[in-house]
Amino acid sequence: MVLLRSYVSGGWHTAPGEGAPLHDAATGEEVARISSEGIDFAAALEYGRSVGGPALRKLTFHQRAALLKSLASHLREHREELYALSARTGATLGDSKFDIDGGIGVLFSYGSKGKRELPNDTVYVEGAVEPLSRGGTFVAQHIATPLQGVAIQINAFNFPVWGPLEKFAPAFLAGVPSLIKPASQTAYLTARLVELIVESGILPEGTVQFVAGSVGDLLDHVTAQDLVSFTGSASTAQKLRAHPAIVRNSVRFNAEADSLNCSILAPDARPSTPEFDLFVKQLTTEMTVKAGQKCTAIRRAFVPAEMLDDVAEAVSARLAKVTVGNPNAEGVRMGALASLEQREEVRRSLKALLDAGSIVFGDPEHVDVVDGDEATGAFISPILLKADPERAEPHEVEAFGPVSTLMPYTSVKQVIEFAARGGGSLAGSVVTGDPVFAREIVLGVAPYHGRLLVLDSEDAKESTGHGSPMPQLVHGGPGRAGGGEEMGGIRGVLHHMQRTAVQGSPRVLGAVTGRWVEGGPRVEGEHPFRKSLAELSIGDTVVAGPRTVTRADIDHFAEFTGDTFYAHTDEAAAAANPLFGGIVAHGYLVVSFAAGLFVSPEPGPVLANYGLENLRFLTPVKVDDALTVTLTAKQITPRIDQEYGEVRWDADVTNQDGDSVAKYDVLTLVSKEQP
Amino acid sequence: MVLLRSYVSGGWHTAPGEGAPLHDAATGEEVARISSEGIDFAAALEYGRSVGGPALRKLTFHQRAALLKSLASHLREHREELYALSARTGATLGDSKFDIDGGIGVLFSYGSKGKRELPNDTVYVEGAVEPLSRGGTFVAQHIATPLQGVAIQINAFNFPVWGPLEKFAPAFLAGVPSLIKPASQTAYLTARLVELIVESGILPEGTVQFVAGSVGDLLDHVTAQDLVSFTGSASTAQKLRAHPAIVRNSVRFNAEADSLNCSILAPDARPSTPEFDLFVKQLTTEMTVKAGQKCTAIRRAFVPAEMLDDVAEAVSARLAKVTVGNPNAEGVRMGALASLEQREEVRRSLKALLDAGSIVFGDPEHVDVVDGDEATGAFISPILLKADPERAEPHEVEAFGPVSTLMPYTSVKQVIEFAARGGGSLAGSVVTGDPVFAREIVLGVAPYHGRLLVLDSEDAKESTGHGSPMPQLVHGGPGRAGGGEEMGGIRGVLHHMQRTAVQGSPRVLGAVTGRWVEGGPRVEGEHPFRKSLAELSIGDTVVAGPRTVTRADIDHFAEFTGDTFYAHTDEAAAAANPLFGGIVAHGYLVVSFAAGLFVSPEPGPVLANYGLENLRFLTPVKVDDALTVTLTAKQITPRIDQEYGEVRWDADVTNQDGDSVAKYDVLTLVSKEQP
Repeated sequence: MVLLRSYVSGGWHTAPGEGAPLHDAATGEEVARISSEGIDFAAALEYGRSVGGPALRKLTFHQRAALLKSLASHLREHREELYALSARTGATLGDSKFDIDGGIGVLFSYGSKGKRELPNDTVYVEGAVEPLSRGGTFVAQHIATPLQGVAIQINAFNFPVWGPLEKFAPAFLAGVPSLIKPASQTAYLTARLVELIVESGILPEGTVQFVAGSVGDLLDHVTAQDLVSFTGSASTAQKLRAHPAIVRNSVRFNAEADSLNCSILAPDARPSTPEFDLFVKQLTTEMTVKAGQKCTAIRRAFVPAEMLDDVAEAVSARLAKVTVGNPNAEGVRMGALASLEQREEVRRSLKALLDAGSIVFGDPEHVDVVDGDEATGAFISPILLKADPERAEPHEVEAFGPVSTLMPYTSVKQVIEFAARGGGSLAGSVVTGDPVFAREIVLGVAPYHGRLLVLDSEDAKESTGHGSPMPQLVHGGPGRAGGGEEMGGIRGVLHHMQRTAVQGSPRVLGAVTGRWVEGGPRVEGEHPFRKSLAELSIGDTVVAGPRTVTRADIDHFAEFTGDTFYAHTDEAAAAANPLFGGIVAHGYLVVSFAAGLFVSPEPGPVLANYGLENLRFLTPVKVDDALTVTLTAKQITPRIDQEYGEVRWDADVTNQDGDSVAKYDVLTLVSKEQP
Repeated sequence: MVLLRSYVSGGWHTAPGEGAPLHDAATGEEVARISSEGIDFAAALEYGRSVGGPALRKLTFHQRAALLKSLASHLREHREELYALSARTGATLGDSKFDIDGGIGVLFSYGSKGKRELPNDTVYVEGAVEPLSRGGTFVAQHIATPLQGVAIQINAFNFPVWGPLEKFAPAFLAGVPSLIKPASQTAYLTARLVELIVESGILPEGTVQFVAGSVGDLLDHVTAQDLVSFTGSASTAQKLRAHPAIVRNSVRFNAEADSLNCSILAPDARPSTPEFDLFVKQLTTEMTVKAGQKCTAIRRAFVPAEMLDDVAEAVSARLAKVTVGNPNAEGVRMGALASLEQREEVRRSLKALLDAGSIVFGDPEHVDVVDGDEATGAFISPILLKADPERAEPHEVEAFGPVSTLMPYTSVKQVIEFAARGGGSLAGSVVTGDPVFAREIVLGVAPYHGRLLVLDSEDAKESTGHGSPMPQLVHGGPGRAGGGEEMGGIRGVLHHMQRTAVQGSPRVLGAVTGRWVEGGPRVEGEHPFRKSLAELSIGDTVVAGPRTVTRADIDHFAEFTGDTFYAHTDEAAAAANPLFGGIVAHGYLVVSFAAGLFVSPEPGPVLANYGLENLRFLTPVKVDDALTVTLTAKQITPRIDQEYGEVRWDADVTNQDGDSVAKYDVLTLVSKEQP
């Protein structure tokens, strides 16, 4: 039997001894053995910090993003092999795609977000420059730099591929190496995933390490620069959170624990409405996908009291059609739980739940199994309960399997209170055709949720459903759900970085961030539009003008464009405008004239103006005002996959008194070399 | 002797019994007594949750901001009284201003930020709408809603006014009530502050509670909706972080602990340069302000090895001029430590530091005192040490008084490593006239710091200094500094809110957030520019056009504005442009024509177009393309203190094929009522 290998400190580690057996969920056969004996965990962490971290930090965000994309493509080519192993965890092909394609999707998403939303640089600049002084010589800017430790990622058994990848992608993009530690039960699938990653050679050495088996004394060695992210049970989360080394070093600890997620059916969604059917279908799906072994699955289904029987009947009818059995067998809709022990856990929790309710559908002790044996495979029937929502159990006891509880409610206020009694959830949903009801519920339960889905006939076709965390959106929830946050696009990247407020003069801030800061040095010389990306520097400036704006210009612009707004055309009416007190030039005229002033017309490195940002008209331009524009190179972003890049210019249009009349950023594409 | 009162559950609470005595730091006289005996802490928390929270959540961010501003003005009128009490903590008038004016400044800053950077609404919308589907019927948006618990704020003795206010302001603005618990030693000053707040009647009842004395079983009652923010020693921070109720409920816990902050003198800042003098002056100031009892004070001063003696001499000379004594006495520059016990603590730490170094200036056991007595007042001399930076003590032992240690370094790499050995700091500074050195140090030590100051002759005059946290900037640091973050402008507000990803159709997201979302319903009817704020609704739309852009239009625009860029004027050159392949209209022409199409010229509720945002030119406009513009009301923000407000419009300019050629937001000011 194969003993799973770990990948630590630059090489594959095979433990001495036989290791503990891991069993096929459906057949009970041994799949692999596992042991982390002999790993020097302190050395592994130090290896990540000293080899993986520096290698990653040399790359820009765009370079890291490109590697994630390559890795995603590579793994996609090996999906079939992973699906086959995944079946041994009890997963149907649909379940496996959820896990494996979902995980690869996270890599693609971070690859794409990294390129679009992060700079092609190693420093992240966050938020606006903060003025700290009247004279403008003292300003500040927040930056984010990668933590210089290792992201320790402890995953649950239910998503052996998605789990590690959704933690790895934001860490990697941030510039922080990962140490992946899967739950033993299904670790053989993660082990193969990591083999594929390592063998691909795509990632810099030291940026991924992998521990098959127990973490030993790993956590005793964490420092303030390391992070620990955990997905699993609330009780383990609590133990880790209070670990002495984590507490002592204020280690960033992120937990994502199973929660008692709710779904709420609205009063308008009466039987035979599309929303009623959507609710029933979604509840059935959430109960049966991954045999209900999803942290985000619906555990509590709240329905208007008068519809409880209708819903019970409709859900039972759908559950009756769910074929349970060997995930490889034809027609099987729901596979096995991850292990016989898991099934015992589920049965124990069911007993507690039955103190507060009764079974509507299913038998916890028996199910008809296709191509499998209840004695050796961890099969169980979907179980629908109904319960009294005033009791504690349905809000506190989680059966981590295909189990949900129906509960009645009689008012909006009441169902919001019931939802809150879950003590914090990863995900909730409300199914309604009424946007007003949706708003009330969403704002009422939002403080208790990391994600909320409003399902209706408008979005149902394209909805990804209650139970699917998305890389663009935060995943995590308060309280019982662990109090953490993962993914959420760039938010998850920043979680791996230290935010630092940097104070200094505009010159120094510009030097630190690589971006020109207002008040920083401006260099006039050759027109900066004549310079290629390679030649251009932050602070390169052209000052052009003045040009006088005549009444004839304003009249003509109004007539030519059709913008005859009274403030530009009607002396008396303009005089009555509380902000202008007389004829003013069009804002569009001002920026058009400014462009006419700063342009360098002949063909050259500047290819196009693709946009403007943060345009503010600050002082009205009156007849015969004389405009001067100062254009300064603010940020230079070469693209790694094109012959050009973006240049952001600071534009400041002033009048004859030196007052700014308009400020904005001009966005251009500029060639890397002279054409 | 006065027994300090607590303010809990809607009333003043006086403990039975005599309480423990609190002493004047300079004279040793008893100032007040303190006891929290008899407080029902569970009831106080529940009172905050059920009375303060709901009252606050009814207000918009702008309303809360206005209350903060009123409160700041009110407290400013009572500064003199607070200064007088503050002197009893050992603080000079300068120290008192740092604490009291600093705290009031935080209120003003949050009042102003709340108005400028938050919506006049109860829901915060964060980041962009995230598309989740090809067809656009399923999208998501992150929102933030206030946590529905109480912000428990446990403060340190050294800032009895700034400490509570810097925690209170962001909580209040977020919509979360505060429970303020100061350190006993100086609680009489905080008690008076809270009396002033309560007596003013400015804040809704239940939004501020105050505990004088021990917290008893308070923390046993925290839930996942409460928060705990702590400032104080690292050891207490660790105890609180591991508190069973905090761990069990994943309570948001923010710690800000003293840290071994460093200041680095650059090699270019040789004696007689302005930067050398700035370094010396700043170090002296940081040692003596608040008698060095600042979490952000400089504990470790790194200087190029060859300058160590010069710096030691210069700092000693300045320290020799610092008069120590009764803070009320004429000419006193440095007052007393907070208590005799504090002085013993400092002396103990000094002993440990002396294992690794020696004294350059000062005698830990004796100082000349003006108008005071070393036996009864907690006076101590400023103490400058020098030490071997390879030893552990200078990086780990903090003497929380007027104590700093000089250490030599020989390379950039080495000093970055030394800085990191502090294990995480609140603040660091580098004094240099060389922006390249500044960049190397800042990026090298940023992962270990919450805030970094680059001091040079350019910003020195306006700089707020190494030791001053600013409300606009994050305050907190990794590791030893507690791993937390306070203030940082709106970041500190969001810390008190739950972030939730809301998924749904554009229609539903619009209903939830009160902002029009692309793909949401558009309503055409009366021109929306004819509607006042009161009449206008999200989704109100005008569609105008088409207007054909002729070659003559482009030629004319080029000539009129002077924007003769070749892509608009030179057929052959434009054909060679890789992005256009022929003559294209100016982007400025496109938006000008669009304005001509959507404008409603006669006087009416729309007062002005004050800006544009996120303008992107998406498709080149070729000769004879026909433009149509669709303008939709996206966000409506009435100002609470003006007769008008802001309206943000979504502008989408399309060509004859229906492709978007430009998208942007138009920002206007619109009257609340018809003129």
